[in-house]
Amino acid sequence: MASPAVTSRWPAARRPIVGARPSSRRRRCRTGSLTRSALGLCLGIAALVARRAAAKDAADTTRTSPPTTTAAAPAAANFTAVDEWLDVHREAHVNALKDLLRIPSISALSAHAPDVRAAAEWTAAFATARGFRHAEVVETGGHPVVYADWIDEADPSKPTVLLYGHFDVQPVDPEALWTSPPFEPTVRDGNLYARGASDDKGNMVAMLYGVASLLATNGTLPVNVKFLLEGQEEIGSPQMPAFLAAHGSRWAADYAFSADGGQVASGAPGVCLGLRGSVALELTVTGAAAGDLHSGTYGGAIQNPLHALAELLAGMRDPATGGIAVDGFYEHVEAVSADERAVLARHPVSEAAWLAAIGVTAAVGEAGYTSHERTMVRPSLEVVGMVGGFTGEGLKTVLPAAASAKISCRLVPAQVPEDIADKIISHVRAHTPPGVSVAVTRLPFTAVPYAMARESTANTAAAAVLADLYGVPLDEVFYYRMGGSIPVVALLKRHLGLDMALFAFGAADEAVHAPNEFFRLGSFARATRAYPRLLVRLAAEHRRDLGEGTPLGEEAAPAAEGGGAPWAPPTRWPPVPRRPRRRPEAVRSCRGGCPLVFCVCFFFFCTGSETQFWCGSAVG
Amino acid sequence: MASPAVTSRWPAARRPIVGARPSSRRRRCRTGSLTRSALGLCLGIAALVARRAAAKDAADTTRTSPPTTTAAAPAAANFTAVDEWLDVHREAHVNALKDLLRIPSISALSAHAPDVRAAAEWTAAFATARGFRHAEVVETGGHPVVYADWIDEADPSKPTVLLYGHFDVQPVDPEALWTSPPFEPTVRDGNLYARGASDDKGNMVAMLYGVASLLATNGTLPVNVKFLLEGQEEIGSPQMPAFLAAHGSRWAADYAFSADGGQVASGAPGVCLGLRGSVALELTVTGAAAGDLHSGTYGGAIQNPLHALAELLAGMRDPATGGIAVDGFYEHVEAVSADERAVLARHPVSEAAWLAAIGVTAAVGEAGYTSHERTMVRPSLEVVGMVGGFTGEGLKTVLPAAASAKISCRLVPAQVPEDIADKIISHVRAHTPPGVSVAVTRLPFTAVPYAMARESTANTAAAAVLADLYGVPLDEVFYYRMGGSIPVVALLKRHLGLDMALFAFGAADEAVHAPNEFFRLGSFARATRAYPRLLVRLAAEHRRDLGEGTPLGEEAAPAAEGGGAPWAPPTRWPPVPRRPRRRPEAVRSCRGGCPLVFCVCFFFFCTGSETQFWCGSAVG
Repeated sequence: MASPAVTSRWPAARRPIVGARPSSRRRRCRTGSLTRSALGLCLGIAALVARRAAAKDAADTTRTSPPTTTAAAPAAANFTAVDEWLDVHREAHVNALKDLLRIPSISALSAHAPDVRAAAEWTAAFATARGFRHAEVVETGGHPVVYADWIDEADPSKPTVLLYGHFDVQPVDPEALWTSPPFEPTVRDGNLYARGASDDKGNMVAMLYGVASLLATNGTLPVNVKFLLEGQEEIGSPQMPAFLAAHGSRWAADYAFSADGGQVASGAPGVCLGLRGSVALELTVTGAAAGDLHSGTYGGAIQNPLHALAELLAGMRDPATGGIAVDGFYEHVEAVSADERAVLARHPVSEAAWLAAIGVTAAVGEAGYTSHERTMVRPSLEVVGMVGGFTGEGLKTVLPAAASAKISCRLVPAQVPEDIADKIISHVRAHTPPGVSVAVTRLPFTAVPYAMARESTANTAAAAVLADLYGVPLDEVFYYRMGGSIPVVALLKRHLGLDMALFAFGAADEAVHAPNEFFRLGSFARATRAYPRLLVRLAAEHRRDLGEGTPLGEEAAPAAEGGGAPWAPPTRWPPVPRRPRRRPEAVRSCRGGCPLVFCVCFFFFCTGSETQFWCGSAVG
Repeated sequence: MASPAVTSRWPAARRPIVGARPSSRRRRCRTGSLTRSALGLCLGIAALVARRAAAKDAADTTRTSPPTTTAAAPAAANFTAVDEWLDVHREAHVNALKDLLRIPSISALSAHAPDVRAAAEWTAAFATARGFRHAEVVETGGHPVVYADWIDEADPSKPTVLLYGHFDVQPVDPEALWTSPPFEPTVRDGNLYARGASDDKGNMVAMLYGVASLLATNGTLPVNVKFLLEGQEEIGSPQMPAFLAAHGSRWAADYAFSADGGQVASGAPGVCLGLRGSVALELTVTGAAAGDLHSGTYGGAIQNPLHALAELLAGMRDPATGGIAVDGFYEHVEAVSADERAVLARHPVSEAAWLAAIGVTAAVGEAGYTSHERTMVRPSLEVVGMVGGFTGEGLKTVLPAAASAKISCRLVPAQVPEDIADKIISHVRAHTPPGVSVAVTRLPFTAVPYAMARESTANTAAAAVLADLYGVPLDEVFYYRMGGSIPVVALLKRHLGLDMALFAFGAADEAVHAPNEFFRLGSFARATRAYPRLLVRLAAEHRRDLGEGTPLGEEAAPAAEGGGAPWAPPTRWPPVPRRPRRRPEAVRSCRGGCPLVFCVCFFFFCTGSETQFWCGSAVG
């Protein structure tokens, strides 16, 4: 378990800007811009158009000619150029993400298997176009994965980083609750709404663009990169255990980061040190073999499968303690240390605010724990779906022949999915009401619970980049465990010995797995900026770990003062505004490159009362 | 409450045949008929064609010219002619029923309201074509009713009989469980499969044809008849209380019979003395206002609406006693007398057979009662539908924002539907788990429980006819109460002072309200024969009650010996074979009247190893 004390290995002071314009010049275009002089506007347009064209050329060069690889760290790396490249191409990046979001790659529904494959092919082609090599759709026996890499064969000193994401998504029902269709990406108030926008296509595409931005602006990367992009995460990666056991060595790496995961809040940086595991079961209660029966003719004299199922489910929770009443469910659960509870108590979102944000009137759970503890370090058993009898309009007076429910458990160290499944099955057998039979089947979502040490190089690099990006002291970075599950995390540990750090930017309130899932476009931008910084930081940390350099903090801080040091920590990133934005459509309409359209759009963009992107230094 | 002792007012001995051919001539065409001589076949065809043509002429005459009405009982009434008319027209009758069954008149679904109206119009037109008068679709504010009558204005001594049925049907889902589409009537093994085949279109059409057979063969009826044919029975007749309060006098009558109801078994006659009432509610549990939530992010810390609903429903039943655990639920329930329990113990179907017939392994219900008692004289509370969360293929790891369940209660005298609804609402309020809210709405199915005296003229007439039709002694007729509800029964008692006896021929195993509903074609035939006998018997009973005649049993038995007495009890009806039949399609294809087709069909009909209709005496 992680220690609660923050043990940063370098100073956490806010870092001065290295090679960046003064922050006073980085101003946001917003209200009142009509008073800005026409001269300034024209100059701004001219400068941005010129920079955009240059960046486009650079990007095209990157794609068509292999970047130069050298043994040395790429001296030309410069986050100003990276950020400007990302800014200039932001619209195209969002449009590419939208293209991927239009593919209904629902891994849970077999009818959508071709869509999952289409998403894999889209992703592989996209990786190739971004300058990565060997992009390939790889068969797993189920939904495929995508491999891609960028290996600097000329420099054996570079560490290799595995980067993970997934292009499959959850089902969309109840579809009627979506404000806009789940597979027609729509921007509202600065948020991009679509199934998968946050989990995980948005984060995955941002990661790819982020790494690509380094390639595009520097022609090389400070590390080797291997991508593991998956198509079955949302169904628990059923083929991945066998696949990684057989072919995992292809992804051998020194570090691993996941673009799946997320932040506990949109404005507070955190580093995730663990994930709950998962096991899921379906209970099918069967009554009369003759089928549905008239509730008048038979009501009161035979077991009703819906009643029996309700009793079974209700009996799995102890109303007195709020705990799970399945015998042995807590047998292997590790106690939460006082230290860890103290860390979790620093959650940036209060319990009241956390409940209010989802419109819940009361916390309900295991007695003796806070809501954050209940979701992060304690296991759960939830009914995620149930159906039986007549559920349409009005009434049909029928005793259903069958009823079914899906149960999803979240597990914590050291619970074992198979053991918990067995215990639930034993519980069901012992408590099946008379007059019905119950079949229990495993659903394809199994993940071993996972926790990693806080002091790993991957985590310290991630924490430093997050502190910079969010503009907070390093000791304000929140260390937590996530309530969700990413099965591949434990699989990578098992088959490759890799601890995978989560480095994703979706926030907990973005309705993942639910109707109206969205991704803040500000978070998308932040994610694209985060990955180049992460790789640069990681390379430096790696060199330092090998005794090839001074600790990064000590090295970077003076360099920052003097300017010009390669791979320096970046400028402090302004907090992404959280107010609703307007007129994103006008911004999007700038695509196509027509100068006139661009100027008009840019004018609206800069004079609009609220915008969603940062103008950078283009306007004086 | 009915007395358990059978107090028949006339001898129950099996009645000799009056005016009928010897039963040896009434033989069924089945296996081995290929050895029958070609001469016999041709003669048979010729005789049947001739009889069919004559009967058709008679029927047409009935429809086009008003029948002669006389003050006396129609002396020409003759069940031989009636039965032959029914036999000859059987195929057309079944085809007409199929036409009605093709109309998806699901009263519960508003999208099908035009279909309910179409069924009403079909029924009114059908009644007119059968020789009834003043057939009219009458508005109720909801689904319409159909009025039709045949009043002998020249004979004020005739009693008036109200005949009830309904042409609306239950929903069909789960539609995937139907072997043939619910609105494409299909004959398999001598059974007609379609939604509404038994409940109640099949019984209603049989009733109309049965009464029409008397008109067609005698030109008059021994009683006045008023039809009340309803389009909202399956949703609890929501407009009927107000409608009958305002317009019920149009259906003023001396007796009332319902073609809705049925028999406890297909081979055992019974007279129903009561119906359970009904009240239905929908519970909607609402949790997070934000909508569905990720079960990993929130699982274990907030109330799950599905869990909460399961707890609420499970808490409505006491697992120790099997009774309903809603406070006050049994408050007004009348105790079941020892006499009544003794009568119910004579149920023609043993509890074991009753359970085996529906494929149930154990009886489950209120402790201290048999299954038959639980369904007939004890109340019930059943969940008839429940849904929440993700119920599709695979898994979606979501905490649902809401869950709902439909509850249907069956009530016994003297429970009051509104009182029970209030008690359930109070129970829900008192037991709502924290963190969710529960809305309770009434569903449109309310019926006051009903019981009638056993010794009424209507019941004694019905019992006598049933004993004859089923070929059992009168004291073997089973007196019972029905578990289902027909709201209009209590309404007729309230607004017209009428006790409505159930006179229907669907059996309890015919999957009413469920997938693969069917009606035995043998039961359809029996129902058509039953109604003319009932009206004749009722007229005689009525005259006897008025002192105008001797008790029917005493009158009829000698007449039967000597032959020729009008309105005599009919021949004993052979038990309808219960073995699977074959080749009904060949029989159906005889429609159209083409002599060649008819001959071919008839040949197959008579030579087939199994057929579904009786050939009567046409073949020697």
